[in-house]
Amino acid sequence: MSKLVVNFNPGNICIEATEGSSLLEVARLAGYSLASECGGLGTCGRCKVRLLSGNIFLSGEPDLTAKEKAQGYILACLARIIENIEVEIPPESEFSYTLVTTDTPFNPAEHPGAELQVRGIPINPLVQLLELQVPPATLQNNASDYERFGAALAKRDVPRTFDISLDCLRSLGKTLRESDGAVEVLTHQEAQLTKILKVSSEPQPDIYGLALDIGTTTVFARLIDLKSGEIQSEASEYNKQIPCGGDIIHRIVYAGRKHGLAQLQNLALQSCNGLISELLQITGAKRESIVAVSVAGNTTMQHLMLGINPQTIREEPYVPAVTQFPVFAAVEVGLEIFPQAPVFFSPSVASYVGGDITAGVLAADVHHSDRLTLYIDLGTNGEIVLGNREWLTACACSAGPAFEGSGVKCGMRAVPGAIDQVTRNSKTGELAFRVIGGGTPKGICGSGMIDLLAELRSSGRLDARGKLKQEADPRRIRSMGRKAEILLIDRAETGGSGDVVVTEVDLDNLIRTKGAIFAGIQTLLKGVGLPVFEIERVVIAGGFGRYLDVENAIRIGMLPDLPRDRFEYIGNGSLRGAGLALLSWQLWGELHDISRKITYFELSSWPGYMDEFMAALFLPHTDIGLFPSVR
Amino acid sequence: MSKLVVNFNPGNICIEATEGSSLLEVARLAGYSLASECGGLGTCGRCKVRLLSGNIFLSGEPDLTAKEKAQGYILACLARIIENIEVEIPPESEFSYTLVTTDTPFNPAEHPGAELQVRGIPINPLVQLLELQVPPATLQNNASDYERFGAALAKRDVPRTFDISLDCLRSLGKTLRESDGAVEVLTHQEAQLTKILKVSSEPQPDIYGLALDIGTTTVFARLIDLKSGEIQSEASEYNKQIPCGGDIIHRIVYAGRKHGLAQLQNLALQSCNGLISELLQITGAKRESIVAVSVAGNTTMQHLMLGINPQTIREEPYVPAVTQFPVFAAVEVGLEIFPQAPVFFSPSVASYVGGDITAGVLAADVHHSDRLTLYIDLGTNGEIVLGNREWLTACACSAGPAFEGSGVKCGMRAVPGAIDQVTRNSKTGELAFRVIGGGTPKGICGSGMIDLLAELRSSGRLDARGKLKQEADPRRIRSMGRKAEILLIDRAETGGSGDVVVTEVDLDNLIRTKGAIFAGIQTLLKGVGLPVFEIERVVIAGGFGRYLDVENAIRIGMLPDLPRDRFEYIGNGSLRGAGLALLSWQLWGELHDISRKITYFELSSWPGYMDEFMAALFLPHTDIGLFPSVR
Repeated sequence: MSKLVVNFNPGNICIEATEGSSLLEVARLAGYSLASECGGLGTCGRCKVRLLSGNIFLSGEPDLTAKEKAQGYILACLARIIENIEVEIPPESEFSYTLVTTDTPFNPAEHPGAELQVRGIPINPLVQLLELQVPPATLQNNASDYERFGAALAKRDVPRTFDISLDCLRSLGKTLRESDGAVEVLTHQEAQLTKILKVSSEPQPDIYGLALDIGTTTVFARLIDLKSGEIQSEASEYNKQIPCGGDIIHRIVYAGRKHGLAQLQNLALQSCNGLISELLQITGAKRESIVAVSVAGNTTMQHLMLGINPQTIREEPYVPAVTQFPVFAAVEVGLEIFPQAPVFFSPSVASYVGGDITAGVLAADVHHSDRLTLYIDLGTNGEIVLGNREWLTACACSAGPAFEGSGVKCGMRAVPGAIDQVTRNSKTGELAFRVIGGGTPKGICGSGMIDLLAELRSSGRLDARGKLKQEADPRRIRSMGRKAEILLIDRAETGGSGDVVVTEVDLDNLIRTKGAIFAGIQTLLKGVGLPVFEIERVVIAGGFGRYLDVENAIRIGMLPDLPRDRFEYIGNGSLRGAGLALLSWQLWGELHDISRKITYFELSSWPGYMDEFMAALFLPHTDIGLFPSVR
Repeated sequence: MSKLVVNFNPGNICIEATEGSSLLEVARLAGYSLASECGGLGTCGRCKVRLLSGNIFLSGEPDLTAKEKAQGYILACLARIIENIEVEIPPESEFSYTLVTTDTPFNPAEHPGAELQVRGIPINPLVQLLELQVPPATLQNNASDYERFGAALAKRDVPRTFDISLDCLRSLGKTLRESDGAVEVLTHQEAQLTKILKVSSEPQPDIYGLALDIGTTTVFARLIDLKSGEIQSEASEYNKQIPCGGDIIHRIVYAGRKHGLAQLQNLALQSCNGLISELLQITGAKRESIVAVSVAGNTTMQHLMLGINPQTIREEPYVPAVTQFPVFAAVEVGLEIFPQAPVFFSPSVASYVGGDITAGVLAADVHHSDRLTLYIDLGTNGEIVLGNREWLTACACSAGPAFEGSGVKCGMRAVPGAIDQVTRNSKTGELAFRVIGGGTPKGICGSGMIDLLAELRSSGRLDARGKLKQEADPRRIRSMGRKAEILLIDRAETGGSGDVVVTEVDLDNLIRTKGAIFAGIQTLLKGVGLPVFEIERVVIAGGFGRYLDVENAIRIGMLPDLPRDRFEYIGNGSLRGAGLALLSWQLWGELHDISRKITYFELSSWPGYMDEFMAALFLPHTDIGLFPSVR
């Protein structure tokens, strides 16, 4: 097959391509992160590019307006290269990964060490540093180095069967003699086995654990001091897999392609390793000082990160390859830290209730609660847990990435520049926007979207089925072909980065999301035969949750209409839970108890779920009796 | 430093060398295996080469005759390269590795499976293949693949904590679906842990274990069918480390040089991997079918093979880095077989009583014997064990490589072409030689040397202190400078490969060897306060032992003068023991019991040993009362 050349702009980057290859793939090779909610199936329309010269072959009919087509726009995923071409990538098609790091003092109560203290559990991390004095060899005690070392270690409170790597054994003799037997031993105790990870003659500086939450849309990393239990820093960024598909299903489809699984694994690791580098840079810590990792993440993300095929997750009977993970070494997984650092994966419950949820339940302490608790994780998948210390049930409803800003035309994460709150002047009816960090708004995040939906509905700008009514606000609401959109901020105010708008498609997605979540809650309640008002505590978790207006979330019919003091927000519960487990063998054990205790409701085959969902697509709900305070 | 060129002959091989580098090293880089008993210290004189042109710098005074010097002979180890030179390597300086393989039917009683049967122990190998039926996933049983697999495995008689590699986990789902859940699982059970090494959808062909005996001079390998317990084939060859030093001490010294340890490790692995390739070729077995390895070998060889620094072995208090070895994966060790195959090292007792001896004691069943047993391993180190089911003692005496033919001027292994027996015509007094495999003798092996020493002494050709008496046999005995030698076979009879001679130096080495062994036996006996005649059973182990004439060994004062029916020969006891352990968890456990039970006598610091040694240098001994039948 002949080699052709594609010239990309902006950047004037030329790259060779094989005849017949996909323009989307070639653009990625050229270094452009083209957005692609659908993972390259030609359905989401996010990878729109403009053909400046040359011809391409279209493998499907793109959903573009006549005007766009006339201007030369095509969808990169449908375009196959057949001759030399020149392409322009419009800014809105390039996916941008907003890296956010935090090194400002954390809320003292947020430190996992402090949380453990509240629960009355001592810090007892999964990887420990023991100071050991190994007696020297003499003609009388002429046991080998390893045997004398083992005898000294066996006097400590650790399992008596030891495992040591060959590398570690090779340097043991030298280390013991350099330090006159005074060594620090890094150990990990697994089942009845003590793994010796490192033996040092010099006192080790700080040792750190890494808590990771691998979300479908966003990846979070926290560096935690294993001795003090304090968070050192935190970083988060969009998952680099996003251009391969906006949600779990599209990622799984992508993984089924040739090299797809390896690509996704690689991208997950890029995301994690990028954040690790950030954390190291902020704190000045050494790479080798990260000696343990705790990974929360949904089942699919955990599979993809490990390069395990997730296909069976989406095929009946919806079974993942693994839910209770063995402990792997960082080097085996591909994390760029101390190579022998054990990597602990939070156990999953089922295909769509993963280690992120078990970690979240741990963080919210649902499994010890006397009160009936509803735990809702508002991520790309909306996972819901209902239960208390006696029992736990869970389900997952495909929420989509709307809450995290991905897949929304002007969506963004809840980071500086995002509209996080929308209010309405009760006299003029005019909308007002609050921006995280102040300044010029660049887009809108999940909490802003919920507020907007609530205000549009209550002000009559939107009907109960989610259609914008242009006549209600002709200045802001405009028709764009088949679908309308509402202008929030004019490009004149954004400093040239374009209008901030929300389209009917965006609103429709949000309504489906809120409907799916409410239907999930209803299904769990009906499944256990309890009425909604018996819920005594509602815990909201998720990246944007801290800006969430519970009142508005109830007004749009997403959250149940319960007394407002029953609601609380715990931030990223998965990340918190992963951090807690890292610091305590007891909590690591509880995490596994939680995973075994949860009864999973598979909604896709659950009778009645679809009816619940259809009823919940209405604003707030077809059964208004469920929302007495909204009426 | 400037680059110089060395031209080697025969072969006309030119190689670049840095100014100041050692000619011995450069010759090795050029592919010549120069003999070197002393490991390059300039003392053994085995790396003699001839300088044809150019000059070298000598870093020491070589022990060569005036004639040799005049002919241009130098010692390669002492020569530093200072200009371009041309060198000739005489055939006697090149070390030749006699590879010997056996695929002829073995003595049925020799098979470890048969030995187990005699002991009433079932075959229960260290690595097992289990057939497993894993139920398919259904909407009712929707546990993950790994959990269903684990549940099925947990019903078998294996430890309930599982460990699986990421690679294995990655392919598990596919394997289960390909085979409808009917899989074969290769497992290794360690402590309370079941390691899952491989899961196959296709029935596995034969699985093999490899028994290795890494001797200082010779390396042996046996391929054993793990199901039937039968030996498939055997191969042995000189240890490729020999040019780095003829005995353990010289190897340890060599390991202390820059890159020395890595070189020795590499050479040990080359030896093992070469034999593995041979075994695979003979049997037609696949590399991946070797799934377990049991390694006997002396403490130093085990260290070197693993790349662990052995320096402390020769420094007071003579402590090795490790005696009870963890189990490593083949890939970690560097053995070219199924990468995840566990490698089991026979435990050592001390610096000079290694895994070869514990394995030998296991093979000879000393630890179950009611009879007081003397176990003697006639290798490069002579190790001696004295004991019974109640107690075990052991010591090691540096025998040197004479028994295995290395370091003896015309020495060779007990392989075809070797003189293995020397007899004397009682009428004419003339010597006669038996050759292994018949045909032209190429050299003499250990058993031949013992016979020769006995016959030379009893015929008056040698005095009681080991000096050849030329007048007693002027035709054979000739003076060569300071030392005499005896001609066994004239070059006219060897087909041009040179005279077969034994020098006074060779005889002196042998006398030191036999003296060291007898002194060791005496020391152990005195240590436990028992007279020699209480020994009820003498087990001789070692590569040449099958040709050993016990009568002659007693006549020279090497073995104690006991009734001849108390002596038995078990061949390579270490290799046998390694093979037995591979087939039985019980025996693997006994091997460790043996290692802990043996009381080690460190002869170098044992009061009285040196006196015993000096007395034993006489032929047969200064105290002739110890050898009543010889008198």
